[in-house]
Amino acid sequence: MLPRRHRDRNGRGKAAIRRTSSVKVNGVPFRSIFLDEDGWSVRIVDQTALPHEFLVSRLTDVAAAARAIMEMKVRGAPLIGATAAYGLALALRADPGDASLARARVLLDSTRPTAVNLRWALDRVSAQVSHLPESERASEAYRAAAAIADEDVERNRQIGEHGLGLIRDLASRKPGDAVEILTHCNAGWLATVDWGTATAPIYLAHDAGVSVHVWVDETRPRNQGASLTAWELAEHGVPHTVVVDNAGGHLMQRGQVDVCIVGTDRTTAAGHVANKVGTYLKALAARDNHIPFYVAAPSSSIDWGLTGWREIPIEERPGAEVARVRGRTDHGRIETVTVIPPGSQVANPAFDVTPAELVTGIITERGIATASREALARLFPEKATPRGTEGSA
Amino acid sequence: MLPRRHRDRNGRGKAAIRRTSSVKVNGVPFRSIFLDEDGWSVRIVDQTALPHEFLVSRLTDVAAAARAIMEMKVRGAPLIGATAAYGLALALRADPGDASLARARVLLDSTRPTAVNLRWALDRVSAQVSHLPESERASEAYRAAAAIADEDVERNRQIGEHGLGLIRDLASRKPGDAVEILTHCNAGWLATVDWGTATAPIYLAHDAGVSVHVWVDETRPRNQGASLTAWELAEHGVPHTVVVDNAGGHLMQRGQVDVCIVGTDRTTAAGHVANKVGTYLKALAARDNHIPFYVAAPSSSIDWGLTGWREIPIEERPGAEVARVRGRTDHGRIETVTVIPPGSQVANPAFDVTPAELVTGIITERGIATASREALARLFPEKATPRGTEGSA
Repeated sequence: MLPRRHRDRNGRGKAAIRRTSSVKVNGVPFRSIFLDEDGWSVRIVDQTALPHEFLVSRLTDVAAAARAIMEMKVRGAPLIGATAAYGLALALRADPGDASLARARVLLDSTRPTAVNLRWALDRVSAQVSHLPESERASEAYRAAAAIADEDVERNRQIGEHGLGLIRDLASRKPGDAVEILTHCNAGWLATVDWGTATAPIYLAHDAGVSVHVWVDETRPRNQGASLTAWELAEHGVPHTVVVDNAGGHLMQRGQVDVCIVGTDRTTAAGHVANKVGTYLKALAARDNHIPFYVAAPSSSIDWGLTGWREIPIEERPGAEVARVRGRTDHGRIETVTVIPPGSQVANPAFDVTPAELVTGIITERGIATASREALARLFPEKATPRGTEGSA
Repeated sequence: MLPRRHRDRNGRGKAAIRRTSSVKVNGVPFRSIFLDEDGWSVRIVDQTALPHEFLVSRLTDVAAAARAIMEMKVRGAPLIGATAAYGLALALRADPGDASLARARVLLDSTRPTAVNLRWALDRVSAQVSHLPESERASEAYRAAAAIADEDVERNRQIGEHGLGLIRDLASRKPGDAVEILTHCNAGWLATVDWGTATAPIYLAHDAGVSVHVWVDETRPRNQGASLTAWELAEHGVPHTVVVDNAGGHLMQRGQVDVCIVGTDRTTAAGHVANKVGTYLKALAARDNHIPFYVAAPSSSIDWGLTGWREIPIEERPGAEVARVRGRTDHGRIETVTVIPPGSQVANPAFDVTPAELVTGIITERGIATASREALARLFPEKATPRGTEGSA
């Protein structure tokens, strides 16, 4: 089922280092994190430089890995988890002792306290190495980190396969025309190790020859849509158009969107979806215009202990993200400019919650569920908790 | 009913030139357009420099007036109308002949073909002067322009009085707390001659001692909220907070908005509201959260011949407005930066339509109407056309 270039694209010297991969940068498959040719240091795509520069940074110690997460050179819960795992491996390579392991865990754990996958990855790698003799710990940590990365890729590919079915279905209803997909923020390969979540169905459809066109929300304040999603799609050759976050409702009113697909930062067991702020507004417009609204959610992003949406804490981020915009001047300099008056306050809630009733379906690695406790529990019976814990809706 | 400083604030040398006015800049009442001390040239606030610089430009001929409209140094339909009227006066002062009048009309009419008030103002001044001897034309044109400006101010003040009633009512339900008002784009005094439309109730409430706090949508792509509305409110001392366009839904979900008040570019006779793109999304969120959604609409912005909303043409503006952002660098330079990758397309629909069923009420200079043909016709019986012309909803 995989496109041919995914199964075998090792013709170039560095392909073995980049591993087989799906999404391309300037024609070359790339992962967002991979082992360097030296076999031990770690390469990451520096996402703070995008879309203006494509920089691949090299991490040689755990401090650099922690900094990369903290400074958002890597972001997106799955990628943060993989980076933290490699960070532990770097720490154990330098010093495999218990104290070194403990220090590295504390350091990495403090980088982004809200990312679910961060603690999970640290726990997993630690559990895999702590009982081993010191001489075996580093190599086992590298194996665990690689497994975490590979599992993420496979989970996203499966989400892609399930989503591809939806897109094929929409395509069959408008032969000759592109399926018009709207997405918000970046749930792309840059937020994961490869494929992305919301973008996985899009990349698979494009690679399978199904004509798609993506409306990319700019996603203020950090502009992850315009900076990252648009860049990813452009590099891979997927037709797309950037619009401001205000435009989606108009596009839906005028029949220019066939389906919305977004990612999620946390989904409750009842199918309520916390995602980048503004997602809720698009879901409202989708319902008002009878357009299906899907959420691509690996099971790792489902919070099985939570059902009511009002309990989801919403991170308030620095106002400077709203007040200041980074871009490239006409002279090619990267510059940050302030866009609000000095006398004005700024607020910056980073997420909102789309209630389950606005969600047509949740695309997981095991298939598509309606946004309900029952449907999600059917797909993941081993994870669902008894109904008694349900909170207020 | 007017605040004291509005009735008499002529203590400063230039106050007579600025006329009595309502909204203050750095403590001084200002209109967005006014006659210079010389008694003939025209002063405008250069809105392209805001919020970074407060520049008052001087227009000395009709070409400068036309350029000011074209380059959006002045914008907002009512202000465009007043500027065009003064432009004709400047033309007639230089040459009161028929050919001069005709040339000036053509020039001004070509500046912003979609602004309703532009043609109306040109027609009105022309009709008032064309039958006069040449020696009287210029002074009559100045009188007509001043009347157009004064009438705009009075209409907006009336809208403000009606809206103030709404705000007082909300305030009475939460004694001690500020009334939380969300607005989109700039329907402020900068879009009119004074008071603004959506902001008129806010300024009157603030001046009357009713505690208000305004959530100001940034309003991408041109950032009129962050650049103009926030600046206006800051100068006048009204508490406010700038948020990205994505945040309004979240604020409403969390009970942080009591009422939405927006302006309109064109409202149909049935109460459908075309306004800055993104307005529709906020109206959907307001309905979903049972928050009243009001539109401040002077009768001049109601298109009595149009009822169905799908007929309203939506202007597609240059993609550069999305791709490029203007602001101030940390070194104080005004700089424009590009925020999208070079390989990406951009679309920029400038308006959307909020269907009447999402609108709680339309605040006009004659009172508040529900968003329906019947209610609007009751307020403006002389303007409403027979029901037979109603289009598709």
